[in-house]
Amino acid sequence: MTDAAAAPLPRVVIVGCGFGGLEAARTLRGAPLDVVVVEKTNHHLFQPLLYQVATAGLAAPSIAAPARLLFRHQPNVTTLLGEVCAIDAQARTVRLADGHVLPYDHLIVAAGATHSYFGHDEWAADAPGLKTLADAFDIRRRVLTAFERAELEPDAARRRALLTFVVIGGGPTGVEMAGTLAEIARHTLAGEFRRIAPEDAEVLLVEGSGRVLQAMPEGLSERARQQLEKLGVRVRLGALVTRIDAGGLDVQEGGPDGPVHRIDSRCVIWAAGVAASPLGRLLAQALGAECDRAGRVKVQPDLSVEGHPEISVVGDLAAAMSHEPGKPPRPVPGVSPAAKQMGRTAARNLLARLAGRATEPFRYKDWGNLATIGRHAAVADVPTPFGPLRFSGYFAWLFWLFVHVYFLIGFRNRLIVLMDWASAYWTFRRNARVVPELDPPRQDS
Amino acid sequence: MTDAAAAPLPRVVIVGCGFGGLEAARTLRGAPLDVVVVEKTNHHLFQPLLYQVATAGLAAPSIAAPARLLFRHQPNVTTLLGEVCAIDAQARTVRLADGHVLPYDHLIVAAGATHSYFGHDEWAADAPGLKTLADAFDIRRRVLTAFERAELEPDAARRRALLTFVVIGGGPTGVEMAGTLAEIARHTLAGEFRRIAPEDAEVLLVEGSGRVLQAMPEGLSERARQQLEKLGVRVRLGALVTRIDAGGLDVQEGGPDGPVHRIDSRCVIWAAGVAASPLGRLLAQALGAECDRAGRVKVQPDLSVEGHPEISVVGDLAAAMSHEPGKPPRPVPGVSPAAKQMGRTAARNLLARLAGRATEPFRYKDWGNLATIGRHAAVADVPTPFGPLRFSGYFAWLFWLFVHVYFLIGFRNRLIVLMDWASAYWTFRRNARVVPELDPPRQDS
Repeated sequence: MTDAAAAPLPRVVIVGCGFGGLEAARTLRGAPLDVVVVEKTNHHLFQPLLYQVATAGLAAPSIAAPARLLFRHQPNVTTLLGEVCAIDAQARTVRLADGHVLPYDHLIVAAGATHSYFGHDEWAADAPGLKTLADAFDIRRRVLTAFERAELEPDAARRRALLTFVVIGGGPTGVEMAGTLAEIARHTLAGEFRRIAPEDAEVLLVEGSGRVLQAMPEGLSERARQQLEKLGVRVRLGALVTRIDAGGLDVQEGGPDGPVHRIDSRCVIWAAGVAASPLGRLLAQALGAECDRAGRVKVQPDLSVEGHPEISVVGDLAAAMSHEPGKPPRPVPGVSPAAKQMGRTAARNLLARLAGRATEPFRYKDWGNLATIGRHAAVADVPTPFGPLRFSGYFAWLFWLFVHVYFLIGFRNRLIVLMDWASAYWTFRRNARVVPELDPPRQDS
Repeated sequence: MTDAAAAPLPRVVIVGCGFGGLEAARTLRGAPLDVVVVEKTNHHLFQPLLYQVATAGLAAPSIAAPARLLFRHQPNVTTLLGEVCAIDAQARTVRLADGHVLPYDHLIVAAGATHSYFGHDEWAADAPGLKTLADAFDIRRRVLTAFERAELEPDAARRRALLTFVVIGGGPTGVEMAGTLAEIARHTLAGEFRRIAPEDAEVLLVEGSGRVLQAMPEGLSERARQQLEKLGVRVRLGALVTRIDAGGLDVQEGGPDGPVHRIDSRCVIWAAGVAASPLGRLLAQALGAECDRAGRVKVQPDLSVEGHPEISVVGDLAAAMSHEPGKPPRPVPGVSPAAKQMGRTAARNLLARLAGRATEPFRYKDWGNLATIGRHAAVADVPTPFGPLRFSGYFAWLFWLFVHVYFLIGFRNRLIVLMDWASAYWTFRRNARVVPELDPPRQDS
């Protein structure tokens, strides 16, 4: 065949369909490319609202859209379900866990992050983290089961442990988890139990450093702490976790020589550490590239990997810098707008390379920093041409709500989420308080 | 203490919070009783729409409400999560699987039904049934995974097996599952795959008897079969399943000497057999009562167990008769309105007994028979004072829709379900096409 149209198109493999991978694939819309998106799960997840699924406020389908539905009208994209377990940069192939081998001409790796237990992987069983829908269901089951078990528990000390919820890590996820758990105990479940008073439940937020929300200016961290306390969360700063087991955790306060306290709890949630997907180190090995301490792959200004212009890394997996003209490079934070922007830049640079044009360095457009804490409680730090705008409380909460509903993918999801929130707001109910099965009894319970 | 108010109230234990148990507890509202509802899961499930969760049309919270939320404003009800594993009719106690022992003065057992494999429990792993939310998630995962695997499968025969969906049993659940699977293949997923054509998937409905929907008049069964075929389902009547394994099933047609055909399929769904909860036989043993072949407990006309006026059995667990004045007793069908009515009668009889009044026999009010098949397709058989009204097609489907949304518990659920259906109707999309994890690879695949 000499027909040019029959020549195979260059193949772009995109690993991951989070914010980075999705945006990269969308940017390639209409290009004469064979784009293959490989995703481990069957959905794109709106991760900023995942804590709402974990805390029974939203049903999973409200914040997750089938990956292939999103590409339905983009005929140059093929969606494949699979987990990439090896990359051969010489042969230019990726291998999936089920044995499939996919050749590529260009590779965009957007495999994201997972939770890190700082070398204590044995803690994972007793303190689940929150990154996937499966994690969210696990946490929902544990939280709801703890209240149910408490209602049945005749022993006061065991009941106390069942009604003690500990969130480890004072970042955005930890803060919103703790705030929402307090709301569940004080409002959602109030009046539904006959033997316990759910509002007596204790919600602790344990943070190793001196303040919550470290990415925020200090003043807003302090406002966040105050709002948490007002919602009923006990915030323990400068508290290092030294042990987690099925019955609770040990916490050391006042530095490395400080006393170690025991907290009995049957529901511990890990929101402390984030590490790049293991694919980062795999990729670095395959390419001879460098990783940072969190396992993120160091990339060139244009997001490609040194010596491999055909490979880009974007999102939480990339140790990328933002390059603004006339300013020194700044590290890019691990937030979803950054992942999205990196996905777009990597795809544009790919198109530039194909067209023989020069690639451009990644420049991060910072839209600001926003964290929700609970009902009427949030903090916001928004850059404006007149300097940063910092506010907290009711208006920050409304602003957070607006931004998150706006960015949710798909009209139907937005509407359903708005309805669920409106109903939750007026009634204090949470609409997804349903688990297929109970948490199985723990070793010592 | 001589204060009469301090004397403990009579304790009513209700086992199960399905339609029967829920209605019994609600009927006891305001009565001077200590009502304890023991439920295995944390929710009341609107089972008639469970197939919609299994086929990714609805999110689980849309059809499930937390049991204790339903009793929030009924202070005489305590909800306990637990599985009843023994009943001691002498000591008047029930024992939960976690060791708790609950004394009772009155007992209403409404533990419902489960699926039966007619002595072939080994089929359960390869042909899941649909009774619980966990079942629905399992089926959703298998169905969605099959299409995903097919997209990756290079071998034509294996791809064919992945795209062959078999529903066993032509009752209401089997018919609606098969009809909806055909709609998913032909409409929902159309245009989303690049290597397979999902509309080429084959959906088979295998029924042992000579017609589907045996509870319906023959004419409507035939109409249902025609509508199924029109939707793209291949209906095989008089086909007996003789074997199910990970690769498919064997089906014998034309009687016990007929030929046995092999059907290769990676997604087989069991909708053929229903049996009473194992609690039925347990209860019968404890009381010396009789069970029927399906394991249902034979009850007196007033729904109590012979020799034990303090114990009633209602819903799918009861082999009950309907007693209409001047007519011979008729068996009660295993449908949700019947369970609800039994729950109400058992509770009223309990109140009558406490007041020293005579109990009344159960009389089943038959609202008719309604089965949905798919888009614009349903059959209805509604008794009227002028004789039965039988209709099918578009109007039966509208009628089914109205009835089911009307009886859904909770305003919010109704609205969300209506919205999901309206959007599914116009766009052919299904809004819950999300699974936390993929179906793990089967033995031979």
